[in-house]
Amino acid sequence: MTRTELISRIRSRKSFLCVGLDTDPAKLPAGADMLTFNKAIIDATREHCVAYKPNLAFYEVLGAEGWRILEETIRYMGRDHFIIADAKRGDIGNTSSYYARTFFDTLGCDSVTVAPYMGRDSIEPFLQFQDKWAIVLALTSNPGADDFELREMEGEPAFAQVLRSVSAWGSPDNTMFVVGATRPEQLARVRSIVPRHFLLVPGVGAQGGSLAEVVKYGMNEDVGLLINASRSILYASSGADYAEAAGKEALRMKEEMSIWL
Amino acid sequence: MTRTELISRIRSRKSFLCVGLDTDPAKLPAGADMLTFNKAIIDATREHCVAYKPNLAFYEVLGAEGWRILEETIRYMGRDHFIIADAKRGDIGNTSSYYARTFFDTLGCDSVTVAPYMGRDSIEPFLQFQDKWAIVLALTSNPGADDFELREMEGEPAFAQVLRSVSAWGSPDNTMFVVGATRPEQLARVRSIVPRHFLLVPGVGAQGGSLAEVVKYGMNEDVGLLINASRSILYASSGADYAEAAGKEALRMKEEMSIWL
Repeated sequence: MTRTELISRIRSRKSFLCVGLDTDPAKLPAGADMLTFNKAIIDATREHCVAYKPNLAFYEVLGAEGWRILEETIRYMGRDHFIIADAKRGDIGNTSSYYARTFFDTLGCDSVTVAPYMGRDSIEPFLQFQDKWAIVLALTSNPGADDFELREMEGEPAFAQVLRSVSAWGSPDNTMFVVGATRPEQLARVRSIVPRHFLLVPGVGAQGGSLAEVVKYGMNEDVGLLINASRSILYASSGADYAEAAGKEALRMKEEMSIWL
Repeated sequence: MTRTELISRIRSRKSFLCVGLDTDPAKLPAGADMLTFNKAIIDATREHCVAYKPNLAFYEVLGAEGWRILEETIRYMGRDHFIIADAKRGDIGNTSSYYARTFFDTLGCDSVTVAPYMGRDSIEPFLQFQDKWAIVLALTSNPGADDFELREMEGEPAFAQVLRSVSAWGSPDNTMFVVGATRPEQLARVRSIVPRHFLLVPGVGAQGGSLAEVVKYGMNEDVGLLINASRSILYASSGADYAEAAGKEALRMKEEMSIWL
């Protein structure tokens, strides 16, 4: 999916919501298997979001069977949503090129999350595919962001150096950055370095980040935000009405977002 | 596998060789499928190495079928070798704990490579398993190591800060570090920070690193090294004699190593 197509979907659907499919095999409602659950969540949220983000860990834990469920889940999403493989990959160039083929060709995703630690040749293979995207970790929503991402590197926090370097390797048409909602005070700094890039923002909802603050500091003229919610939507109800409850919560978030669109 | 068991295998087999199973579907000899190839390589190298390191990217590119091949390959290794899932994972705590279960419980590996960028809660879940290991990226063998790993963070290269922080979260009994053979001049610095930890060293062979230099600067009283070779062993011959050629190259490396044991 191109940047123009993504923006167009956000404007027409009046939503920049990404639904994170962190489908925990241990949290499934009675009687639902993982694929049934995912399909029901997708059907209930399709009209309210522009992106889906399956988290690979929750599928890999089931081995080959989990990958089969992942493949079928992605097929079920269709081609109208921006699909993010949340996989946090990154390796030497030759290996990264195989990861890129995995997520873009084998699975048919639009994008994959990438860890920047190994540098340029670990990221560039993800930028060689037409209309596909690398979503590079910059400032994450977890407590561990203090350990390296916020440590000083050449006069500023390391994540700022990551933004500067990585944005020069790609463009706003094939690169996004992960910036957590739990540190909205840093979003102004992010925008000063990468004004045009889309940001994938986790941490609204279960992790406590505020949508209004993210919009205030992070929105740009093309919206430039994909706000992810996972647990607050998937587990809005633990009962048989889980899909209905997920749809309601996704709609509630979409309506909150539509104010700014 | 415990540290004591690993050291004992190194001493008795007179080898600290790790064979990297970066089995490239595009480079298989005529007539060999991926699983047949892996089994033949394992049979030919079993006596010459103490560890196997499948590289996940080369399996994931085949989707669920690739994971099935990976599962069968790992089963075929048996329990006498130290098994490293080269997966470069790392995510927020809850997600990392699923990755840990994937590689330790579902696949039965002894260890998994982990990217440090997201900090403490992204690594600690891998340290909660009895006799299992996190192998954390410190200074990698690729050109991109210059981009962030070698940039100055609080007065020294970032990788040195990673070594200091991560070594305090775990112990030499459950943590190793990746340090590339292509920068042997940095090994002395690594050893000054983590004298007791095992190091997983890629980059000898196809990438040009020198075994003698790695030993000179990196070996400690418990050996403390696992030297990985992938392409130079797997593709020692592209003909029908690939397994025999792989065994010969692994034996050659073992004999070079045995001088120091």
